[in-house]
Amino acid sequence: MRVFVVGANGQTGRLLVTQLKARGDDPVAGLRADEDGEDWEDQGITVRRLDLLAKPEKIASALMGCDAIMFAAGSGGRTKDDMTLLIDLDGAVKTMQAAQIAGVRRFLMISMLFAEDRNRWADPLKPLYVAKFYADNWLVHQTNLAYTIVQPGALSFHPGTGRVQSDPLAVGSIPREDLAAFMVAALHAPQTVGKTIPLLSGTTPIADVLARL
Amino acid sequence: MRVFVVGANGQTGRLLVTQLKARGDDPVAGLRADEDGEDWEDQGITVRRLDLLAKPEKIASALMGCDAIMFAAGSGGRTKDDMTLLIDLDGAVKTMQAAQIAGVRRFLMISMLFAEDRNRWADPLKPLYVAKFYADNWLVHQTNLAYTIVQPGALSFHPGTGRVQSDPLAVGSIPREDLAAFMVAALHAPQTVGKTIPLLSGTTPIADVLARL
Repeated sequence: MRVFVVGANGQTGRLLVTQLKARGDDPVAGLRADEDGEDWEDQGITVRRLDLLAKPEKIASALMGCDAIMFAAGSGGRTKDDMTLLIDLDGAVKTMQAAQIAGVRRFLMISMLFAEDRNRWADPLKPLYVAKFYADNWLVHQTNLAYTIVQPGALSFHPGTGRVQSDPLAVGSIPREDLAAFMVAALHAPQTVGKTIPLLSGTTPIADVLARL
Repeated sequence: MRVFVVGANGQTGRLLVTQLKARGDDPVAGLRADEDGEDWEDQGITVRRLDLLAKPEKIASALMGCDAIMFAAGSGGRTKDDMTLLIDLDGAVKTMQAAQIAGVRRFLMISMLFAEDRNRWADPLKPLYVAKFYADNWLVHQTNLAYTIVQPGALSFHPGTGRVQSDPLAVGSIPREDLAAFMVAALHAPQTVGKTIPLLSGTTPIADVLARL
């Protein structure tokens, strides 16, 4: 599948592109105009430019011809310059609208654990939770996209184990490698469409967790 | 009618309380715990405390027994401390959820001109437009409230004229006094329910503009 990765130079985005390629998919690395795409091109991976501050129609032109989108962009907690509102919320929603314009129906979103439960929002991350909450909500209620929302716990740089859990009440962390592996597996698991899935490190192989959804 | 004014000490909120009282309604001045309510109490106006950073259930307890809510709170452009996200967006939506919990069906929202049209968002105000867009959208699509959304142009301190216009393509300003007068009149005009109304200074008496809706 031709999969557009929004935020391909991000910490999770890089892993998504690499793992998609390794699995035999055809990733497209979505980067801002000011980001370096040479590494990707050296590996034979297509680079396309997109600006999440632009209009949906503009973003749509970058998405044309793709079969799926993985949204892995994030303001990186830069709330002081309004990027939480403009990227994590409105940039995400504009990408959904762009997907509809471009006719790309499959949309995989990286959200945050408990984004839908205001009672569990930890204080320093509250603005990011607000942004993720309204972005996820839009995807579920105001699009006709075939979505999968993955809500990982705290992201770590530990090496992946390939083993996760999806207990809706658990708290914890997950290596970015395992998040990326789960996203790539979810892309090819039709039972994830229309689902919001919490994700943490665990003891169950990813394929088994997906099989039980 | 017993009307809860959220943000009663704000520049528009003050005018709402005063004009509601003058018209014979029964305004309730909604203030934060740290705001001075003595002026209102001296005028025989009920003061209730509410915290837009609290949970909807908590906000609901302040709204009990009211017939309508006017949302006039705002972060005042303090985007640097995340208040655009936490007050203008999530605080507004929590107030809507609180209204539903408290059984207050009528909800009048002060939004911004062109909040629903991303192509017309002026750059310095973009974060506030994002917040207003998603708050208005929630009110329309994700509540069963009898809403009226008023979208004024730039607010001025000029004295009110009682004359306005509601041309969806016009650009301009409006005195806060006229905005408040329109809100109070809209409260008693059932044809405003379920409508989003742009509002600018004009040449037509408020009652005539409302009659044509």
